[in-house]
Amino acid sequence: MSERFSRRDFLASTTLATAAVLTVPGHAKSILTEAKTEPFSDWKMKPVMDFSKSPYAKLRQVPVGAVTISGYWASRRKTNVESSIPSMREELADHGRMTNFERLQSRSKEPQKGPVYSDSDIYKWTEAVAYTLQSESRPELKKVADEQIREVVAIQEPNGYLNTYYVEDRKPLRMQQHTQEVGHELYCMGHYLQGAIAYYRATGDPTMLNAGIRFVDDFLLPNYGPGANQKPIVSGHPEIEMSLIELYRTTGNRKYVDLAGYILHGDKRWTIKPNAIVYMYCGIPFPERTKLEGHAVRCMYACCGATDYYLETGDPAYWKTLEALWQDLASHQLYVTGGVGARAEGEAFGDAYELPNARAYGESCAAIGNMMWNARMLAATGEARFADVMERALYNGINSGMSLDGKLYCYRNPLAFEPATGDVIRNPWYDTTCCPPNIERTFSSLPGYFYSTSKDGIYVHLYDTSEMNWHLEDGTGLKISQKTEYPWKGDVSMTVSPAKSQEFTVYLRIPGWSAGNSVRVNGKTVDGAKAGEYLAIRRKWSTGDRIELAMDMTPRLLKANAAVMEDVGKTAMQRGPIVFCMEGLDQAEENHGLNMANLRLDLKGETKVRFEPETLGGVTVLEHPGSFVAGAPDLYRTASPGPGEKNGTMLKLIPYYAWANRKPSPMQVWIPYTEA
Amino acid sequence: MSERFSRRDFLASTTLATAAVLTVPGHAKSILTEAKTEPFSDWKMKPVMDFSKSPYAKLRQVPVGAVTISGYWASRRKTNVESSIPSMREELADHGRMTNFERLQSRSKEPQKGPVYSDSDIYKWTEAVAYTLQSESRPELKKVADEQIREVVAIQEPNGYLNTYYVEDRKPLRMQQHTQEVGHELYCMGHYLQGAIAYYRATGDPTMLNAGIRFVDDFLLPNYGPGANQKPIVSGHPEIEMSLIELYRTTGNRKYVDLAGYILHGDKRWTIKPNAIVYMYCGIPFPERTKLEGHAVRCMYACCGATDYYLETGDPAYWKTLEALWQDLASHQLYVTGGVGARAEGEAFGDAYELPNARAYGESCAAIGNMMWNARMLAATGEARFADVMERALYNGINSGMSLDGKLYCYRNPLAFEPATGDVIRNPWYDTTCCPPNIERTFSSLPGYFYSTSKDGIYVHLYDTSEMNWHLEDGTGLKISQKTEYPWKGDVSMTVSPAKSQEFTVYLRIPGWSAGNSVRVNGKTVDGAKAGEYLAIRRKWSTGDRIELAMDMTPRLLKANAAVMEDVGKTAMQRGPIVFCMEGLDQAEENHGLNMANLRLDLKGETKVRFEPETLGGVTVLEHPGSFVAGAPDLYRTASPGPGEKNGTMLKLIPYYAWANRKPSPMQVWIPYTEA
Repeated sequence: MSERFSRRDFLASTTLATAAVLTVPGHAKSILTEAKTEPFSDWKMKPVMDFSKSPYAKLRQVPVGAVTISGYWASRRKTNVESSIPSMREELADHGRMTNFERLQSRSKEPQKGPVYSDSDIYKWTEAVAYTLQSESRPELKKVADEQIREVVAIQEPNGYLNTYYVEDRKPLRMQQHTQEVGHELYCMGHYLQGAIAYYRATGDPTMLNAGIRFVDDFLLPNYGPGANQKPIVSGHPEIEMSLIELYRTTGNRKYVDLAGYILHGDKRWTIKPNAIVYMYCGIPFPERTKLEGHAVRCMYACCGATDYYLETGDPAYWKTLEALWQDLASHQLYVTGGVGARAEGEAFGDAYELPNARAYGESCAAIGNMMWNARMLAATGEARFADVMERALYNGINSGMSLDGKLYCYRNPLAFEPATGDVIRNPWYDTTCCPPNIERTFSSLPGYFYSTSKDGIYVHLYDTSEMNWHLEDGTGLKISQKTEYPWKGDVSMTVSPAKSQEFTVYLRIPGWSAGNSVRVNGKTVDGAKAGEYLAIRRKWSTGDRIELAMDMTPRLLKANAAVMEDVGKTAMQRGPIVFCMEGLDQAEENHGLNMANLRLDLKGETKVRFEPETLGGVTVLEHPGSFVAGAPDLYRTASPGPGEKNGTMLKLIPYYAWANRKPSPMQVWIPYTEA
Repeated sequence: MSERFSRRDFLASTTLATAAVLTVPGHAKSILTEAKTEPFSDWKMKPVMDFSKSPYAKLRQVPVGAVTISGYWASRRKTNVESSIPSMREELADHGRMTNFERLQSRSKEPQKGPVYSDSDIYKWTEAVAYTLQSESRPELKKVADEQIREVVAIQEPNGYLNTYYVEDRKPLRMQQHTQEVGHELYCMGHYLQGAIAYYRATGDPTMLNAGIRFVDDFLLPNYGPGANQKPIVSGHPEIEMSLIELYRTTGNRKYVDLAGYILHGDKRWTIKPNAIVYMYCGIPFPERTKLEGHAVRCMYACCGATDYYLETGDPAYWKTLEALWQDLASHQLYVTGGVGARAEGEAFGDAYELPNARAYGESCAAIGNMMWNARMLAATGEARFADVMERALYNGINSGMSLDGKLYCYRNPLAFEPATGDVIRNPWYDTTCCPPNIERTFSSLPGYFYSTSKDGIYVHLYDTSEMNWHLEDGTGLKISQKTEYPWKGDVSMTVSPAKSQEFTVYLRIPGWSAGNSVRVNGKTVDGAKAGEYLAIRRKWSTGDRIELAMDMTPRLLKANAAVMEDVGKTAMQRGPIVFCMEGLDQAEENHGLNMANLRLDLKGETKVRFEPETLGGVTVLEHPGSFVAGAPDLYRTASPGPGEKNGTMLKLIPYYAWANRKPSPMQVWIPYTEA
């Protein structure tokens, strides 16, 4: 137990730390005056979120390193590690994100570069590298990351503070109320801690982690908090909450949970403007929230932190609120792509059912936040509705955020597009470059979301050709291999190989979109598969037992709730987890035109499904009958009842995530339909 | 000719002033050191825009004072003058808009109040009073306005500067580039000049006008302009341009046209950011514009100024641009209500066909700017398409901006509304209170938009029970009376009474929405009436000649262009000039619900038309068959081809302008329809 932890007396911390602080290699040593010589006991093979000691988690994630993917996601992940991560590192360097650190060591004369939250991009990139290193050996990436970590920790001040923006002339602004509200100091530290924890779990190197602990222990806790001698905290952009709880899960020091709880509760000593309380999604007790609102990423990250807090404390007020917010998400706020946050103005949630298409904001980070939140809700309950949202976001609204070559990123993810607007949705760089490294860390951590263990067995959440090599919670070794052409085909063949024959339950996720399903074990049908639930298969499993799952890949025409006024008279197509869209360049030449406005999809037509290996890296495309309805140029005209002149045509649809990977072209997810 | 004008040597001013500056009553005299003793020769009975000497105006407006309205608009105008104008004066005073002036005379210790453009609200209010005084005697209003004008001119500085914001500590910021871009100094002066000119034309009192001339002549022109010794001008929020040209029309001093032209052209000595050039709609030569974009009010006011400039100069590059911009308006950017400016973000025009309903911005000021611009385009051409847009905006998107009691105002004018959002659209006060006095000046100036003269006769633009007492351009006296129940009925009975029998042309506007029309003169049918054109009736007119016009008031179901993706599957209803909407509280009780989303209008049904004298101050309502379609609560569901379960119902619609005058209720202009 570290003396440094035990001397702190924050709130009613009853669970004391069991971790120690490790020696720090290289020149950073000098500033870590209290560094100890022992490592945390068990850094290897830890999950993305380590629920192993979380009393209110029903499920526990299987680590990234325990799952090897070789199917659909393997190529996206290869692009991620070989193209995105290295090119983003160059972009970050080219835009001065590292000279910010070098300047403070007097090794650069460049001025401070980038917005107030620029440090966080470095940390998210580090986290992406960390998960990569949990999967595979990439010495060249590790070398860059190690060097970068040395640059980062070298600027830590003796009091523990670490930030490249609130320095020099801006130092007096540190942690002032206004700075806390808009300055992202704790947001940056939250991403720092997430990166540091992931890197520690990847390499055992605590250099970055220890400096983060010093920030929290030496700078933050002694000066900020609920005590009479402490100044208030408002997180401004929620992020620190979930990272503090993961820090507890890493160190065992309960005070970090308590600090997160204090932040989630808000501090009444500071008056925060009502619109800031909405926008920031913090500043009042989390359980007083009744709906998703304000800045979508802030809101999603706050929900992540609140769910983490629930997983550790079981506070029923938190759960009640989280369930109500999730119902708001699923009933009013979720794009069919899994994106969230309708409005560009304030990058915010809109009103209930406000889901514009061309003007959709749907920030990549918000879709990621949505997946992160649902992963936590899934851990709390084992309910498949949360995995359905995760999968919807992952394959569509997150997957769309990175180009097929891995070098262009979406900040916005609109559901309709018209090139004449002049907008360019995929770009190599954004001055606010939160999304690109966020997508990178998500893809690199993806194996960690495939499986969970429970007391009685194992949950299968996601399907792809892959090998899991892990163990049941009683320690029995367990391998599971999946063979499938998912998401293009609905058949998954799995072998379940426990180290010894043993009775336990395999929970197979039956996706909510799969209307008809068949499950066989060793050739024998298992009844009871229901869409949107886990099928519990309890039996004595022996090495090589075979599960065959067949999901329903019939293309589905979707309608939105009538209250989504933007989608009245329109349909969207989904097949399996993949949401499709129509790009203008795929349509018959005579049908091209602004917004493809005159194309109609015939609701009664039959869809043809075809895999095209040469298209967009190999995708399944859909062809569906439709028509071209000649329209008048007038903005408004008298409606003539009955259909106008129509010419039959075939509409071709591609996976939404792959849009805008060819030349600029109009795009629509929601397509006007005719019933006749 | 004033020596003050002739000594100025600005650009190539060839037309020299014929006006003089008048003595100024009361204590303001002391500051007008060069005041002369002669009035401008002819202040009485001038139009809102005085095109009498504009070489490129085909039409010349008939003055406000020459037309007395006693029909539909009489009650709105009575509310305006008896409720809105007095209550707004109180609101302005309560919010410190006059203490801003008193402080600078050391008669108030209040700090500066309100945003940077607060002075303009006072000037727009003065303009509203001025048009009222052109219509009728309102000594109590005149007294308040006279006092207010004395307060205003009293703060003019010896160098001519007049503004309550850029004083004291802010004085060094005056007319700096950044201040010109965002500080509204010239915007305020533009509104000042419009108010001053209207007040002069109402009363002959040049107090306010002379101080405005001093601002331009003594402060602005010597220091700012294209000369090597002058600093650049960028208007920031266009408004000064049209007011300078009206100042020319008032004084005859051509230099004001030249200054407006210089401002419209932009000054390359200053580099302005591209997004500011879009947002401000100034800073580059106006003829380089290709579309409506940026802040909608700025854009509309710029178009007004540019059209005024064309009317005085005939510059063909301006006309070509104005025509292209108008096509952009009519084809891509015009709400069915006549509102413009789709986006809340930047209060801006959206992309082509981007016309959201619930999220429509449709600022009242932008609809007014749209009407002001079209009135100028109409003067240039005599083409009815411009009058159609004026009428659409006037009866709907402007008319909606003031509550029936005249005390609440819309800033936004959405085309759909849901009270659960918590939005309150009608409010008594906005800290940016540009819209309320703008609506007030529009309603009070309205008689000035009814008629124009041309070389060969008279144009009738708007219909309402009214009396015109004016003259043809050859000086022959002419009275026209209209009797009608327009806009509720389509019959107009007019008598045309020239002072002596004479041949001339009466141009009757046949609205674009009126499919079938009948025109009779003294009982005899006149052929040739076409929707969207003026019917030219040339004959020898004698006192008491009678025109009977019957327009087509069949309720019309409208569809929007297929490219307006928000309106796919929806219809709007219009009857005569009135656009209708559906409010939840008028519908059968069982159909109430969020957004009235499950109500469908039957496209083939027959509309019942009924005047309800007790409803909303007396309006025509529509009843149309529709249905209630039971919907699932899911956000997304599999589309089942064919109609769902429907229960027939009747939908009731009220005029859009009268929405939100009862208890909060959902509202829709565009209503989902069924064809079966």
